[in-house]
Amino acid sequence: MKDEFLKKLIVPAETKIFMLIMDGLGGLPREPGGLTELESANKPNMNELALHSALGLSSPAGPGIAVGSGPGHLAIFGYDPIENEIGRGALEALGVDFELGPDDVAARGNFCTVDADGILIDRRAGRIATPQATRLVEMLNDIRIDGVEINIRLIKEHRFALVVRGKGLGANVTKTDPLVEGVAPLPATGLDEPSQKTTGIVNQFIEKARVALADEQPANMILLRGFDKLPALPKYHDRYGLKAAAIAVNGMYKGVARLAGMQILPVEGVAIEDEFTTLARYWNDFDFFYLHIKQTDTHGEDGDFDRKVKVIEAVDQQLARAFTLKPDVLIITGDHSSPTNLKSHSWHPVPLLLYSKNVREDGIAEFGERACIRGSLGIMPAKDVMPLALANAGRISKYGA
Amino acid sequence: MKDEFLKKLIVPAETKIFMLIMDGLGGLPREPGGLTELESANKPNMNELALHSALGLSSPAGPGIAVGSGPGHLAIFGYDPIENEIGRGALEALGVDFELGPDDVAARGNFCTVDADGILIDRRAGRIATPQATRLVEMLNDIRIDGVEINIRLIKEHRFALVVRGKGLGANVTKTDPLVEGVAPLPATGLDEPSQKTTGIVNQFIEKARVALADEQPANMILLRGFDKLPALPKYHDRYGLKAAAIAVNGMYKGVARLAGMQILPVEGVAIEDEFTTLARYWNDFDFFYLHIKQTDTHGEDGDFDRKVKVIEAVDQQLARAFTLKPDVLIITGDHSSPTNLKSHSWHPVPLLLYSKNVREDGIAEFGERACIRGSLGIMPAKDVMPLALANAGRISKYGA
Repeated sequence: MKDEFLKKLIVPAETKIFMLIMDGLGGLPREPGGLTELESANKPNMNELALHSALGLSSPAGPGIAVGSGPGHLAIFGYDPIENEIGRGALEALGVDFELGPDDVAARGNFCTVDADGILIDRRAGRIATPQATRLVEMLNDIRIDGVEINIRLIKEHRFALVVRGKGLGANVTKTDPLVEGVAPLPATGLDEPSQKTTGIVNQFIEKARVALADEQPANMILLRGFDKLPALPKYHDRYGLKAAAIAVNGMYKGVARLAGMQILPVEGVAIEDEFTTLARYWNDFDFFYLHIKQTDTHGEDGDFDRKVKVIEAVDQQLARAFTLKPDVLIITGDHSSPTNLKSHSWHPVPLLLYSKNVREDGIAEFGERACIRGSLGIMPAKDVMPLALANAGRISKYGA
Repeated sequence: MKDEFLKKLIVPAETKIFMLIMDGLGGLPREPGGLTELESANKPNMNELALHSALGLSSPAGPGIAVGSGPGHLAIFGYDPIENEIGRGALEALGVDFELGPDDVAARGNFCTVDADGILIDRRAGRIATPQATRLVEMLNDIRIDGVEINIRLIKEHRFALVVRGKGLGANVTKTDPLVEGVAPLPATGLDEPSQKTTGIVNQFIEKARVALADEQPANMILLRGFDKLPALPKYHDRYGLKAAAIAVNGMYKGVARLAGMQILPVEGVAIEDEFTTLARYWNDFDFFYLHIKQTDTHGEDGDFDRKVKVIEAVDQQLARAFTLKPDVLIITGDHSSPTNLKSHSWHPVPLLLYSKNVREDGIAEFGERACIRGSLGIMPAKDVMPLALANAGRISKYGA
């Protein structure tokens, strides 16, 4: 559906939409003929809700495509995840809570070791310890380049994120990391005019970093790669007429939500219940809430079936609190599947529940992968979930007479 | 599917397709956990037919989009309802049985009241009675403008449809209705050259109308808005090789059918059985029949659950008559949903039944919203139903060798 088509039909309403995203929710049976993580979980609240909901599966980017959390979130937020690419550098910067703006160019950085001739002898500087790297990052942050602001934030060990903030900067910049040792780092090259402006700055910065780090061992040089900018996306307020808020603990998810124009709400603590406490506290102030649960994915990627089940059960308990807030529309799904069997993100469509009083209820008393297959939503593109939620919330007017 | 692709595959056949459209057919459970209108209806013929049919749901314009009858019909007739927009003025003209052609520009009109200085003091001329308005419409129909034919048809009270028929006229014309009182009516303005040709004519007409109505009270002036033309659509004969006929009581549905190149058949009376009598009478003369039932939507919009059920039951009885005609393909669906709970058109996909001897029958002995979810057609775009019907009718040849 074209953005412009939908936008013309959006009407204001007093309704509230709550989107609960359990990262990597979808799973696979533990053993052939067995149950998935979600099917195994004791989740009375989700099952009761399912009975009065429409069920289905959300497909982030089409058949066979496993997505990262970036495109997975863009899709469930209603953006085409293939047309709107978020690169690795921007994701790294978002992941360390950098409030990346539309003019910022981000890159992934490594401390490395070069010999007296400038030849790369260790691309990761012996994976130096985080405390040592912290001091080096402070040194890099003291470097000044006229006309721009450069920020470095440590990720861990030898890895950091670099952000150049300035006007008219392109991100079509080649990496300085040759990806092999025994050669010198490459100069950054801009592939168009705005990007040449960026490389002028970046190459100055690298030279100043080389001088500053000259007496350090082993981290006496830096490498950069994955230059990019955030895509410019229409914001929830303009696009859907929604005053939107995001509740998440990890930086990357806040970053993608900010990209959609959501206001990031403070969470006191990092527990699941802390996020739901924030939801309750701000309930009257917004039309739309996105709440992100990280641990389903973490345990999926760790291959820890039982812990993933326990996270789902903990979310189920909190769901009762959310329901007392009386959302007009409640969506439960994930940004992608992360089956513990595979220990990774996967392409399997993600269980999807849409509750509202206007839904054609399926009467299926279970929220699970195979229950959802029998649901009335079918396998739907994740990016179409928002229009459906808006319709159920009375926020889309009739098209044509 | 691209039109040109399908058109090349169309082959002639002796088969007949009957498309039964129950307007606003889809519904919602009367109460949580209850049955929908269609599920509640006693409809032995539809249920028997369902057992030997493929079931699914048709989606007129995608997730979350509630459509008017115009786009809903375009979709089920096989046209993209978003690319082919029918505006309000054209629909009003169709609705009063105006045989709108591709060169006609239509608009919605109001009689209104202006004071001695030409300032609008009542946009609706006190909602004058229909008999009085009838006389005024006759006066307007006496106005002549060189080179074009102008026709006015009363809708009711102060409302009328205006149609300008001529060559090279554009419809990109601004409204003369300022939408507020206390100001003068606006001149019509053309936003491109063909539309400026239209406004030249329209503004002359308005001036002559002002003079003609000068001594009338309260309807001494007119306002126009919603100028548009019908989209030019490929006709059923060219597109599908079908000699197609339409059976409908209300003007708008005849109008949309005419747009698709269907011949409008006369119906003696306005009852459901009268429409089926027409079907039987003309059965030998056409390849394709569209038959429209209005009352399912009327009672849906009125919020009258029981009456909507009764209409479905009355159609079910007539269906037995249609079946004796031995259609090769029989489609039952709606142009959109109109749940009585919502008293309006809605976005929910519409139950769809496709019967033919070549169908992969689902063996589901019920035609209803939730039965259709289990059907083999899934949730399909309404515009894809016609290719499926044509294939089942042996009217599409193999693609490629």
